[in-house]
Amino acid sequence: MADKAQLQEAIKTQGEVVRKLKSEKASKEQIDEEVAKLLQLKAQLGGDEGKHVFVLKTAKGTRDYNPKQMAIREKVFSIIISCFKRHGAETIDTPVFELKETLTGKYGEDSKLIYDLKDQGGELLSLRYDLTVPFARYLALNKITNIKRYHIAKVYRRDNPAMTRGRYREFYQCDFDIAGQYDAMIPDAECLKIVYEILNELDLGDFRIKVNDRRILDGMFAVCGVPDEKFRTICSTVDKLDKMAWEDVKKEMVNEKGLSEDVADRIGEYVSMQGGQDLAERLLQDPKLSQNKQAFAGLTDMKLLFSYLELFQVTDKVVFDLSLARGLDYYTGVIYEAILSQTIPASVSTPAEQNGADEAGVSVGSVAGGGRYDGLVGMFDPKGRKVPCVGVSIGIERIFSIMEQKAETSSEKVRTTETQVLVASAQKNLLEERLKLTSELWNAGIKAEVLYKKNPKLLSQLQHCEETGIPLVAILGEQELKDGVVKLRNVASREEVDVPRADLVDEIKKRTL
Amino acid sequence: MADKAQLQEAIKTQGEVVRKLKSEKASKEQIDEEVAKLLQLKAQLGGDEGKHVFVLKTAKGTRDYNPKQMAIREKVFSIIISCFKRHGAETIDTPVFELKETLTGKYGEDSKLIYDLKDQGGELLSLRYDLTVPFARYLALNKITNIKRYHIAKVYRRDNPAMTRGRYREFYQCDFDIAGQYDAMIPDAECLKIVYEILNELDLGDFRIKVNDRRILDGMFAVCGVPDEKFRTICSTVDKLDKMAWEDVKKEMVNEKGLSEDVADRIGEYVSMQGGQDLAERLLQDPKLSQNKQAFAGLTDMKLLFSYLELFQVTDKVVFDLSLARGLDYYTGVIYEAILSQTIPASVSTPAEQNGADEAGVSVGSVAGGGRYDGLVGMFDPKGRKVPCVGVSIGIERIFSIMEQKAETSSEKVRTTETQVLVASAQKNLLEERLKLTSELWNAGIKAEVLYKKNPKLLSQLQHCEETGIPLVAILGEQELKDGVVKLRNVASREEVDVPRADLVDEIKKRTL
Repeated sequence: MADKAQLQEAIKTQGEVVRKLKSEKASKEQIDEEVAKLLQLKAQLGGDEGKHVFVLKTAKGTRDYNPKQMAIREKVFSIIISCFKRHGAETIDTPVFELKETLTGKYGEDSKLIYDLKDQGGELLSLRYDLTVPFARYLALNKITNIKRYHIAKVYRRDNPAMTRGRYREFYQCDFDIAGQYDAMIPDAECLKIVYEILNELDLGDFRIKVNDRRILDGMFAVCGVPDEKFRTICSTVDKLDKMAWEDVKKEMVNEKGLSEDVADRIGEYVSMQGGQDLAERLLQDPKLSQNKQAFAGLTDMKLLFSYLELFQVTDKVVFDLSLARGLDYYTGVIYEAILSQTIPASVSTPAEQNGADEAGVSVGSVAGGGRYDGLVGMFDPKGRKVPCVGVSIGIERIFSIMEQKAETSSEKVRTTETQVLVASAQKNLLEERLKLTSELWNAGIKAEVLYKKNPKLLSQLQHCEETGIPLVAILGEQELKDGVVKLRNVASREEVDVPRADLVDEIKKRTL
Repeated sequence: MADKAQLQEAIKTQGEVVRKLKSEKASKEQIDEEVAKLLQLKAQLGGDEGKHVFVLKTAKGTRDYNPKQMAIREKVFSIIISCFKRHGAETIDTPVFELKETLTGKYGEDSKLIYDLKDQGGELLSLRYDLTVPFARYLALNKITNIKRYHIAKVYRRDNPAMTRGRYREFYQCDFDIAGQYDAMIPDAECLKIVYEILNELDLGDFRIKVNDRRILDGMFAVCGVPDEKFRTICSTVDKLDKMAWEDVKKEMVNEKGLSEDVADRIGEYVSMQGGQDLAERLLQDPKLSQNKQAFAGLTDMKLLFSYLELFQVTDKVVFDLSLARGLDYYTGVIYEAILSQTIPASVSTPAEQNGADEAGVSVGSVAGGGRYDGLVGMFDPKGRKVPCVGVSIGIERIFSIMEQKAETSSEKVRTTETQVLVASAQKNLLEERLKLTSELWNAGIKAEVLYKKNPKLLSQLQHCEETGIPLVAILGEQELKDGVVKLRNVASREEVDVPRADLVDEIKKRTL
């Protein structure tokens, strides 16, 4: 425990931080965060009257999903899982934390973003950072050499969240991977086909899938005169081309990474190239590039890949783009990234986030990405046995954000339950009859609700249907009970019809197909 | 980093622990755990030649789910979710970690089992211990006073795992709760109806649902002469009656908790009582108990509850059992627990776990439990506003264990994919034709696979179908291509028929309904 004077000092300083941010009109997110810190400090002190101030919030960078968001999430998952199953994938699950050591040395500089668990005695653990490393660990641990699997689960990164753009510290990943020793480019082409199918079915507007190959990048760096030991760091700089202009990327190469202007300009020529199979063929004629073993292998495979993509009828959206680099260390072959053409309306994002965005709004950027990683499993195998892998990760959180915005602007209401009928009554003292009928409906597999009140008003029962979208009401009264019928009311049209109790289940099923 | 001499000493000690366990023929689980510790120590030292020893395993008390386990898990979830939806429930999700403070003071002694995250700067966080406290936090944070929701997610407890019995440190909870101010016992009865429906549909054999009420327990303790401040601790002792004989429970009450023999014997009389509505009525006539306000309220509600359970037709499995106590602090009214009559065959459990079990095997114990907690949300609300809640948690991990055992002894193979057809060829050089047809099938919504080989043997293609349960093969050859047909083969019957390519999709759909 910090001592009281120290705490009071810290509270004073933090109070000034908050005041400064407010005066500078900083983003709500930023202010909220600093206010939360202030409240926590005050809580430690014990508040003004020594009263404990409890901060009611979710952890920074995380969010609850309410029922409406869950309904959207389920819809998105169902489209994606259908696609994975259509391609014959199985699914697995792994624990949310791994031995810390399992994650060590897999993420390069990003390792600092890994959440560690407190050492409470026993093993040192970390929350998973992605699903790829646990997948590789799973394959090595279980000595699996062939599998086509998907895995949808949450991963954790201590990143600076930009929550209005759908970036969180806890977020879903949605991965599809093919592991196994197969003939070149066939599984790679299927991964691209899957991205194409999913983005089409989600109906998010136009998109492009950029493709490149680590071997082509490395070969290109070599022939441009980049020293071997700078390949990875120059690769990271090239990766910024989707957010920065070439001039700025070049400056970074020359000023920060120490390349000569000449070398940078040569890279600049290559990374401006885009095309399809034709570009692969043209570069195979490039006297310098085709002499490089790595580049030659990458370009030959790229040509083959495009011939398969042609058969899969997806070449209208796929571009061979030499500027695509992707950050992760473990890629060894083909890499790809899907980008939506659509942008998020400017009104939705906060001013702080619009910096650098054009007037139309913030680009949602990449919604899927992946590539080939033939060396990762071998890092876990005690004998270093390699299992070649290729996979794709769908950027599901950005897709949720877009779908939520769509739902908000749409006139159609998102239903959060599937209830077919509410069992109601207009008269008093019929609770027992209502419960009995509801139970009958449940037993017959009908989705039914009943209000938990002894004598609810008919109006409040009908209102419940309107609010939650329940299409039918089964109304019981003394007369109906005597006649052995139930009054079935259509909520939208207000039509009512007496249905013999024995026919009620069939009638409800017929009307709610 | 510990210094080298210390490490070497620790390795020596740990080596002795392992040798001792082996000589004592301890359980494999226990030995593996100590061996893992030994390996980790050796890894810290850097191994014999200073080589780093990497321990390839999942974290203690956690497991991967392989595709077969996932298929079973999906089946179980689908039955349970259907039931929740039939009862009109929405679903929500909350983050896997909460502010540490949110969990503080909610779990009594069990708080020591909470996983904390490392302080990496920023908020102090803990992994969720159950779904009930995050639910209450969610209601308070969002000022929700009415909701019927389910939540299926993993929770974390640093418990001693007994993995062969389906107890893990990371495990699923599957909760259904009704929050809101309603007329007495109606939502409570629905929770019991839900447990009844789910256990019936999962087909796990016979079961019983024990019901009691915290107010009846407290009233009972009061009239037996237990001092107020000992209610909770005596409640914990009563809770052990499902695992210990009365004599031992009594000993604990007298020797450890300081009750007099008389008081303990009076408790002993009550906790041996079991019945239904009749028992509630009889106890309402008990001159001492009915004078106690708490007990009177509890017994009156119990009578009402049974009248609703009668309407729901579930009284054949529900028992009013005065020995049911349940450990958690936050219950305020009705509590319940479902127990399977079935036992796990002795052969499946390890010797160490059979201690105290009868010859027939280990009892799987509770598979569902819950109760009313009217005060929990108020603990989070800044103004202390109460939201009455009642809910149930399905013990899904134990259910998985039982279903997995069932699947292993069953002759029917569990399929892990849903693939309807494999696109194959008997001749060479038809890869492109296979890919083209597969793509056509995907585009038509057919679940199709193709082997990732240029020229796979027909036999290995057929074997893949046998192994994974794919029912149909679409075979392409030069002749078929010329005739515009595809040879469709039924894997089980080996029948083959030529289908015009234009009719193929319909034919596959017809055969795999």
